[in-house]
Amino acid sequence: MALSLPKGFLYAGAVSGIKTDGKKDLAIIYSEVPARAAGMFTTNAIKAAPVVVSMNQLKKGEKRIILANSGIANAATGKDGIKDVNEIINAYTKGFSVKSDEILVASTGVIGRRLPVAKIVAQIAALKNDLSRQGFMDAVRAIMTTDTVPKYGSRRLKIGGKEVILTGFVKGSGMIQPHMATMLAFFTTDANISAGALKKVMSNATGMSFNRITIDGEMSTNDTVFILANGLAQNESITEDSKSYQLFEQAMMDLSKELIEKMVKDGEGASKVIEVNVAGAKTEEDARKIAFKLANSPLIKTAFFGEDPNWGRIVATVGAACGYANESTLKIWIGKQAVFNCGKGIDNDALLKVRNSMKNRTIQLTIDLGAGTRGFNVMTCDLTYDYIRINSTYTS
Amino acid sequence: MALSLPKGFLYAGAVSGIKTDGKKDLAIIYSEVPARAAGMFTTNAIKAAPVVVSMNQLKKGEKRIILANSGIANAATGKDGIKDVNEIINAYTKGFSVKSDEILVASTGVIGRRLPVAKIVAQIAALKNDLSRQGFMDAVRAIMTTDTVPKYGSRRLKIGGKEVILTGFVKGSGMIQPHMATMLAFFTTDANISAGALKKVMSNATGMSFNRITIDGEMSTNDTVFILANGLAQNESITEDSKSYQLFEQAMMDLSKELIEKMVKDGEGASKVIEVNVAGAKTEEDARKIAFKLANSPLIKTAFFGEDPNWGRIVATVGAACGYANESTLKIWIGKQAVFNCGKGIDNDALLKVRNSMKNRTIQLTIDLGAGTRGFNVMTCDLTYDYIRINSTYTS
Repeated sequence: MALSLPKGFLYAGAVSGIKTDGKKDLAIIYSEVPARAAGMFTTNAIKAAPVVVSMNQLKKGEKRIILANSGIANAATGKDGIKDVNEIINAYTKGFSVKSDEILVASTGVIGRRLPVAKIVAQIAALKNDLSRQGFMDAVRAIMTTDTVPKYGSRRLKIGGKEVILTGFVKGSGMIQPHMATMLAFFTTDANISAGALKKVMSNATGMSFNRITIDGEMSTNDTVFILANGLAQNESITEDSKSYQLFEQAMMDLSKELIEKMVKDGEGASKVIEVNVAGAKTEEDARKIAFKLANSPLIKTAFFGEDPNWGRIVATVGAACGYANESTLKIWIGKQAVFNCGKGIDNDALLKVRNSMKNRTIQLTIDLGAGTRGFNVMTCDLTYDYIRINSTYTS
Repeated sequence: MALSLPKGFLYAGAVSGIKTDGKKDLAIIYSEVPARAAGMFTTNAIKAAPVVVSMNQLKKGEKRIILANSGIANAATGKDGIKDVNEIINAYTKGFSVKSDEILVASTGVIGRRLPVAKIVAQIAALKNDLSRQGFMDAVRAIMTTDTVPKYGSRRLKIGGKEVILTGFVKGSGMIQPHMATMLAFFTTDANISAGALKKVMSNATGMSFNRITIDGEMSTNDTVFILANGLAQNESITEDSKSYQLFEQAMMDLSKELIEKMVKDGEGASKVIEVNVAGAKTEEDARKIAFKLANSPLIKTAFFGEDPNWGRIVATVGAACGYANESTLKIWIGKQAVFNCGKGIDNDALLKVRNSMKNRTIQLTIDLGAGTRGFNVMTCDLTYDYIRINSTYTS
């Protein structure tokens, strides 16, 4: 699908020197007119400085700029970290002739280091000069850390005869768990949409996408999802009650799901995507717990890496995650094939067939507890040698 | 420390053919006289057949035999699994001229496979013939799966002028998490001890040892700890109120801690032992949650493998595990060196010193939340390439 960009947004990326390898590390998204904004953040009790600041900024009306850096997370930096962010915001406020309330910030990278404020401020002229629609890919690349591919996408839709474009890009391949991750996701749209509707779309789409993936069960201090909507498509305003709301929400859900799939595929060291689907639980919360326990189980993740239909580990994990799990009602499928059916596993011949199906790049793992009617699904990846390599050498 | 064996216990191990590599896979512990028994089991909702049977057997008085196999876990085998265990117990009852209530069983290995009952029964004559004190090491080896070294120990103590010996051996190097693991631990003692005191000792020692380790956060269907006490030391009976109780419990605690340390050192692929100590929490349960979250964090475990004092990951994990974590009161030490102190990390020079100390085989990770007075400690190991190798190739 070709990438579409919404009206009135410009992008740029720069090399400020935060990353020591000379790669781009500073991204800017700029709206030519004030845009409505919504955001979602990590639920980690210890939040990075840019998260603390942006949560506060979001209360103060429309926005013009998202400024994001990679390389340093500016987390666990105390009051100094907050001061650094405010200095940067002040400088960009002047440099881009916007109001100080109009800037959102996000960071990703190593925790505990201070941002090099002067280096980031020194890029203002260059970023301003480079702002363009073509700058989109530079911005995408500038937020990558251990990501191996840029991850972005867009949707076009018609609302009341007007074309609306929604575009998003994400980073994040480790430390990914419910309630987001060292995950940054930035959406821009030219839709005309009320603040309330925008907030609802963001919350619903995040609940169905970003909060349903896990790479390694870790939760970052920096997770951030932003959406800016500048209204330049000039469609009749989308409100929570308008018919067009469903259309826009559907586009946001679709795009978010596309992006999380790309994120999981690019999970640290991942060789396979595992779609965990739990049904037959008594409550959605039970199903969620089981799905995440399965998706974070190193024994299951290594078995999938080894293309080994080791359903015994799956049974054990379900039992560990759910007090009322019962082998006599439990059913398990890998791909389309049942591997465990109410107390009985399949025989070795059948297992061989399943083993072959596990050579696929994407594999479904489906559980039916047989205890109720509620379910939950989570997307994850396998656990490989490369995860160890990346995370035992990624520097502190 | 030289191994001591209690009076009146004989041991043997045999090759029954459950394991396909020709290694010993069947262990027996035999008491010459009926022994008081206590046991602790997995809290997994899906329990293996030998666990279900042994939980029931423990209600029925004294015991003569513990029979354990490796290679097949006899878990998720439904009613067939229970029937298999009962057949085996019946055969061993006749073969060893004991009562059917006097046999405890345990299994470890691949989940979902049926036990080869005939092969296990066929070893009765050989096991009977081999029963001896020297057979101890054969029994130890017969319960090993991915363990790389046999793990055992003993304590001698004087109770009222009589020498009492307590001996234990364990297996288990993956799927190790609170409430035990694919962990089997068998203790034998010639102590004369009341049933109530024995149960209490078992429960207290397990709470302070086996329930405080984790290799990979997984919980098995088969975890079992047994102790048999045959009274042949002829000491005055140890009761819950007697002075000698503390002596015996201390010996059991000591030995259990020795064995868990051996188990963690031999954790699947482990190159280092990490002792996680959390203090300053509001409740012990909070401290326990944080300690296990740290001990199971793949990002922290890979950082320790890489000898990387990446305290940022530790801060993030504490924040993810505890809603009232606050960086301004949080302190973190690696070994004896503070790496994070109330919002401030140490500088790069100091970090280099910490990095050097991480070359040690055993490393302490200490957290003070600064929010209360309760604590908890957990022992774990690092996450290495070998964990992936072992678990992506260990067969289903």
